[in-house]
Amino acid sequence: MPSVFPTPLTKMFGIRLPIMLAPMANVSGGALAAAVTHAGGLGFIGGGYGDRDWLTSQFAAAGNASIGVGFITWSLAKQPELLDLAIDHAPQAIFLSFGDLRPFAARVKRADIPLIAQVQTLRDAIAAREEGADVIVAQGTEAGGHGASRGTLSLVPEVVDACAGVPVVAAGGIVDGRGLAAALMLGAAGVLCGTRFVASAESLVHANVRTAAVAATGDDTLRSSVFDVARNIDWPKPWTMRTLRNGFTAQWAEDFDGLRENAGREAARYAQAREAGDTDVAAVIVGEGIGLVHEVAPAAQLVRQMADEAIRLLGR
Amino acid sequence: MPSVFPTPLTKMFGIRLPIMLAPMANVSGGALAAAVTHAGGLGFIGGGYGDRDWLTSQFAAAGNASIGVGFITWSLAKQPELLDLAIDHAPQAIFLSFGDLRPFAARVKRADIPLIAQVQTLRDAIAAREEGADVIVAQGTEAGGHGASRGTLSLVPEVVDACAGVPVVAAGGIVDGRGLAAALMLGAAGVLCGTRFVASAESLVHANVRTAAVAATGDDTLRSSVFDVARNIDWPKPWTMRTLRNGFTAQWAEDFDGLRENAGREAARYAQAREAGDTDVAAVIVGEGIGLVHEVAPAAQLVRQMADEAIRLLGR
Repeated sequence: MPSVFPTPLTKMFGIRLPIMLAPMANVSGGALAAAVTHAGGLGFIGGGYGDRDWLTSQFAAAGNASIGVGFITWSLAKQPELLDLAIDHAPQAIFLSFGDLRPFAARVKRADIPLIAQVQTLRDAIAAREEGADVIVAQGTEAGGHGASRGTLSLVPEVVDACAGVPVVAAGGIVDGRGLAAALMLGAAGVLCGTRFVASAESLVHANVRTAAVAATGDDTLRSSVFDVARNIDWPKPWTMRTLRNGFTAQWAEDFDGLRENAGREAARYAQAREAGDTDVAAVIVGEGIGLVHEVAPAAQLVRQMADEAIRLLGR
Repeated sequence: MPSVFPTPLTKMFGIRLPIMLAPMANVSGGALAAAVTHAGGLGFIGGGYGDRDWLTSQFAAAGNASIGVGFITWSLAKQPELLDLAIDHAPQAIFLSFGDLRPFAARVKRADIPLIAQVQTLRDAIAAREEGADVIVAQGTEAGGHGASRGTLSLVPEVVDACAGVPVVAAGGIVDGRGLAAALMLGAAGVLCGTRFVASAESLVHANVRTAAVAATGDDTLRSSVFDVARNIDWPKPWTMRTLRNGFTAQWAEDFDGLRENAGREAARYAQAREAGDTDVAAVIVGEGIGLVHEVAPAAQLVRQMADEAIRLLGR
């Protein structure tokens, strides 16, 4: 089907809409990825820190939908065999973020699968281009989950200028048709959305996470390492994680030493809260765009609404 | 002359282009403000921390151009008589940022002058609306100079939704026609630009500041209180200042205690460097959009280029 937004991204993947689902760990499973693809965008499974059984089951859940898969690059480096598992499922793209592409780029290229690199700075964009990325996602600090400090609005055009010939996708703060239209004006070939789909019917989060997310404003988030310290995940600098503020961040975000002193107890409390959906302790991982999200809806409806609003704004 | 971008902002001020000059302290003088107005936008003198003689001379330098004037609200509260001086010059608008509008709003309203409030959060936007702001500037963290943590791309539409009926202007990271077109897609009635005009022919900065600015990328900035500590200016929270990174920030940005211990020596060194145009010590106050700025040009040319590019992108 022809695209209503012809961009280098829609042409590369043969999709109707330049809207990609962010490969969010523990959120973007096969059903959500498939729903975004079926609605005209491109869905991704969030491979996250890497779990072979989970990945296999989510590829199965996606059925025959054309989807991609994403990994946390520095974590994939510890389990490089997961890349083979992913490639065996013939994904539409391999999406790597947070780390050095070089150990993986050649393998992905040999499999003739497009390599998407997410970056947070101009410097990393230039490196990703040199390392062979077929698409570059420029992710601004507004984004939920891990990211860095630069804002989407000026990062995107700067990466577009520096990476001429490579499609650039905007990420961070984009949850509706206004954000999509704005990203296209900045020179992006499409958008990557996470936060909007956390509050979709198909996301794998606890129901309480959806409830907390739709109630929040964009003022209610924080970018911090507090939950990485609590979970004892040794994230490299400069990446930190944006979440809603809650009781746990109020207690520990300014006291990492105290958190480390109570590591065992707090890790157990965190794990229990996550299981129970206690969002005053467990992280609600969303970006600043959450302030524009007021209801949970099926992913297909969200994709259509975003596209329709952008089409209207752009006068197409 | 009719506007080519009719928005509530162009209608309110009878201007052709929805482009406002940020009232940057020590940068936006009367000549720069007048140049932006003559090119079709709306220029502002940067009243900053308040200096009666400087303000008077800059109003004179603006000649008969229709311009506005801006103040740092918490600083104006210490010299409220400067508001009378400003009002006596019959400005097009009074622009207040960083503090409580209430001590000033009634006086501005009585003079029948539009009151523009710049905010950095949804919460402050709602407060500004209640306190009688006629225009709200939603400033994202990308901005140069003082600001806070929220990104422009999602802050703007969230403020637009919450402040229906009040024109919202986007600020932070907007330096070209792409940024202007994107801001209009987000629902903004116009844009406020600072960084782009630091590198204009008419800005009051040292020539070395222009040179350092055009050489920088958007990765080269930092948001910090380091220069406020060095200058012994007691800025209230949560505002910090975005500048280029330089030798001074490398030395002190992570060591405020050390900086305070050497306060006298470092304040003197800072003042001397500022006078001499030593940009490895003195602050080059620009935002992340500086990575899209590659040359110095007259302000009128910059306004025209921005408008022409946005018109082309928007297909008007």
